[in-house]
Amino acid sequence: MRGEPSGAAPLGEYAVIVNPEDNVAVVKRRTSRGLRLSFDGRVIVVEDEIPPGHRFALCAIPPGEFVRQYGQPIGTSRGIGAGEWVTHANMSNDVPVVRDLPEDLHNPPPDYFPEEQRARFRGFVRPDGRVGTRNHVLVIPTSMCASHEAQQIATLAEHLFDVRARFPNVDGVVAIPHNKGCGCQDGSTLEVLLRTLANYAAHPNVGAVLLIDLGCEKTNLARMERWMRERAMELNKPLARIGIQEAGGTRAAIDRGLREIEKMLPAANAAERREVSAGELVLGVKCGGSDGFSGLSANPAVGQAADLLVRSGGTVLMTEVPEFCGAEHILAWRARDAATGRAVYRLVDWYKEYASKFGAVLNENPSPGNVAGGLLNITIKSLGAIAKGGTTRVEGVIEYGERVPGRGLWLMQGPGYDQESTPGLVAAGATIVLFTTGRGTTIGNAIAPVVKVASNTPVYERMRNDIDLSAGTIIDGTETIEQVGQRIFDHMLRVASGEVRAKAEENGHREFQVWAEQTVSL
Amino acid sequence: MRGEPSGAAPLGEYAVIVNPEDNVAVVKRRTSRGLRLSFDGRVIVVEDEIPPGHRFALCAIPPGEFVRQYGQPIGTSRGIGAGEWVTHANMSNDVPVVRDLPEDLHNPPPDYFPEEQRARFRGFVRPDGRVGTRNHVLVIPTSMCASHEAQQIATLAEHLFDVRARFPNVDGVVAIPHNKGCGCQDGSTLEVLLRTLANYAAHPNVGAVLLIDLGCEKTNLARMERWMRERAMELNKPLARIGIQEAGGTRAAIDRGLREIEKMLPAANAAERREVSAGELVLGVKCGGSDGFSGLSANPAVGQAADLLVRSGGTVLMTEVPEFCGAEHILAWRARDAATGRAVYRLVDWYKEYASKFGAVLNENPSPGNVAGGLLNITIKSLGAIAKGGTTRVEGVIEYGERVPGRGLWLMQGPGYDQESTPGLVAAGATIVLFTTGRGTTIGNAIAPVVKVASNTPVYERMRNDIDLSAGTIIDGTETIEQVGQRIFDHMLRVASGEVRAKAEENGHREFQVWAEQTVSL
Ligand SMILES: [Ca+2]
Ligand SMILES: [Ca+2]
Ligand SMILES: [Ca+2]
Ligand SMILES: [Ca+2]
Ligand SMILES: [Ca+2]
Repeated sequence: MRGEPSGAAPLGEYAVIVNPEDNVAVVKRRTSRGLRLSFDGRVIVVEDEIPPGHRFALCAIPPGEFVRQYGQPIGTSRGIGAGEWVTHANMSNDVPVVRDLPEDLHNPPPDYFPEEQRARFRGFVRPDGRVGTRNHVLVIPTSMCASHEAQQIATLAEHLFDVRARFPNVDGVVAIPHNKGCGCQDGSTLEVLLRTLANYAAHPNVGAVLLIDLGCEKTNLARMERWMRERAMELNKPLARIGIQEAGGTRAAIDRGLREIEKMLPAANAAERREVSAGELVLGVKCGGSDGFSGLSANPAVGQAADLLVRSGGTVLMTEVPEFCGAEHILAWRARDAATGRAVYRLVDWYKEYASKFGAVLNENPSPGNVAGGLLNITIKSLGAIAKGGTTRVEGVIEYGERVPGRGLWLMQGPGYDQESTPGLVAAGATIVLFTTGRGTTIGNAIAPVVKVASNTPVYERMRNDIDLSAGTIIDGTETIEQVGQRIFDHMLRVASGEVRAKAEENGHREFQVWAEQTVSL
Repeated sequence: MRGEPSGAAPLGEYAVIVNPEDNVAVVKRRTSRGLRLSFDGRVIVVEDEIPPGHRFALCAIPPGEFVRQYGQPIGTSRGIGAGEWVTHANMSNDVPVVRDLPEDLHNPPPDYFPEEQRARFRGFVRPDGRVGTRNHVLVIPTSMCASHEAQQIATLAEHLFDVRARFPNVDGVVAIPHNKGCGCQDGSTLEVLLRTLANYAAHPNVGAVLLIDLGCEKTNLARMERWMRERAMELNKPLARIGIQEAGGTRAAIDRGLREIEKMLPAANAAERREVSAGELVLGVKCGGSDGFSGLSANPAVGQAADLLVRSGGTVLMTEVPEFCGAEHILAWRARDAATGRAVYRLVDWYKEYASKFGAVLNENPSPGNVAGGLLNITIKSLGAIAKGGTTRVEGVIEYGERVPGRGLWLMQGPGYDQESTPGLVAAGATIVLFTTGRGTTIGNAIAPVVKVASNTPVYERMRNDIDLSAGTIIDGTETIEQVGQRIFDHMLRVASGEVRAKAEENGHREFQVWAEQTVSL
């Protein structure tokens, strides 16, 4: 076929090699027994009829040697011949999950691009030095009891003040209604809420803030402002406050809110974009509605873009801690030092114990359906998830919604649940989010563009109005992971600059929720 | 003063007697030492300067006898003279909290009004015999991942189809966006969501239903419909289904949803109100943003209205189980039989254990602030809360959002958190809600009118646009609890008939959330 050596088909037509150090290829198109595939100037004869999602050996793997995918051990060979289907019969699940870390663990810093070669984008440079990709006026209800009023103010303000036309530098007046702030015990659940709301207020994508409370709730304005004062948080942006009980109810509060927004808009509109280094970006990476291809195409491609950003001096945030399970040792060993590595383990252990309180078990052994689809063990599954964080060293670990204190790749505590983890990344400082999906997810975020990357071509074609980019070309064999990664990186900078909007923005998606950590309603 | 016997002031100017069987009166206006108050044809000399919220004895209460408020023991006398201030010095907190119940416990059924004397209202009689107070077209996202689309469809439909004008029998096209349905373990958290959503779909205030899912979430359409099928739930109303992934994304799903709503509106509009007995009403009672007067005015007055409804053959639902603590024995002893009484104890015990998993303690001993305000012990505090359920016997106990299976007074499992407990009452079948507030709360509900009752005149005056009725007149001494209860009952029937709208409806409040029971995000 196509004049390949010895009449073999190019391997890329049937399978994907995720990392150059792998000794297996993952099938994307069912093979036949005896199929000849050319790769690296040689021919591999596939020994079996292998379904998509499963893998075959690129060379003989002697018993006791690691089977490698994502450049990482995914199991131990019991004796696998070249071209042979890798199954539980010829591979054990044994991988070096070593909880100990060398005391002298040290991973080198990222391989930075020279300053003058780094990409640039146009962002909003804020007084604290952070750079936004958007410029929103944000209406923050300090509790659910003010959520209706907050939403009404934002919706009415956009309409009444003709914001898009009259204030072209303002991307929108948006609200973040939520379901928390009262009827609960004191402690971490309120801490998580206050931290998230405060960090949204301080976010570089926000040019002005209106805070609104009911008055008698646990997280009322007084509490929220005390929280911020105790941490010496200064917003350095137009800020107004409204109390519903104080104003005399729903209508009075909405009217007062509209007047406050009207006053703020000219100041918010004074912000202007300036060209800065790509290194000023803070990228959150997410996966949701994943399929068997997510770990082979979209996630590694986003990981490639993440690496390009880190090498440009930028910041990358990855969360979804339940999905680290089974691969946490890889992240721990990639830490800058042993203390950071131990923090990675603590992140996962905390979540396991937390979940067990509810009788939930994190990342259980893959279901029969997973195994049938090629996700033979928990390591393979989790490696596919963490691929979106790229390959650079782990600089540190932060709490959910905690502001990231440095550059490079950071891990954030938090769930995989898209609706809660995306807002957490943004609270931590992400000014843009890359979100991979195999099934097709539509969510966005109130203040940050969420750029969707499809793992396969059919879902991209079917949901083109919601999904920005396709990594399905990797499966189709028309692009490499590196090429798609570069394409994602370039597109991300255009979205960050406001040249194009994310599809979620075009569709008016403005989701917000706070992690339901330790939530017990009283 | 005012020609009262012996120149005494009427007791009602200074204090409230909550129940005719009480041997204390609760002060609403600070007394002076030696103040003479006339009551029941005799004069009581108040012995102390007593602050509002505290109480004095109406007669001598010998040591060992119970001090009674709400007609219930609130403590045991250590020797209290007539007119003496009741404090921790002369009253112990001992009350007969007997966990045992007589095996032959039997409370008589309510004292029903004769059929022909019962009040009537105009409601929507549904095929299953239930009667709605409203007629909404309801857009239900089966998970949070379809919440944006659901909200957009409802908002756009109301606007584009000019619903109020063209379909006068339709009260609105409303959505119930929420934050659940995926990213969690299986089990009760999904059960609670599915039950709540299904019971909203089946609710008599709903004339037509649009269900919408993303497609890949745990509680997708297939799962929700299977759940309803397994319980043989039939909606008997116009019903349409949309899948976002199936439709091809956000915009396609919204477009399709709008077409479905357009098709349903004429059928929904065909529903008409008919006069029926007040006994067809299902009333939910709630308190939120309570103050020191709530338990003295608004709650007992709502309890009076609840009694009138039960005696009319109607149904009353009370929840906020954490607020039963300390008075659960009173509810248990009021049960129709011992089995029901034990179910009341189980309700409270389950909640205590549940909360303890999170390190939360239910209804702790009153805070120093509570005590200073007169809430001397947990019994007094909880008696004030459960007063809103009235005085009739407890017919049974249901789960959160479980459809109430009979008439009379029922208790529902669930939190006090207003934003979650109100939707639970409605899912259980409440077609109208009475909501008492001392601080001023503005929330409503997506499909049921929520009628607010203020506990004091100043908050009513300040928030007249949000609060429907005032029970502050009880504190002011211008109306009795019975009079306010009758006024609430009459107003409730007018709201149920659609003659007037609840203030929350006028303000567009359409809150909805599902109890975060056992929520752990994964
Ligand atoms: Ca919401
Ligand atoms: Ca994920
Ligand atoms: Ca998901
Ligand atoms: Ca309450
Ligand atoms: Ca409350």
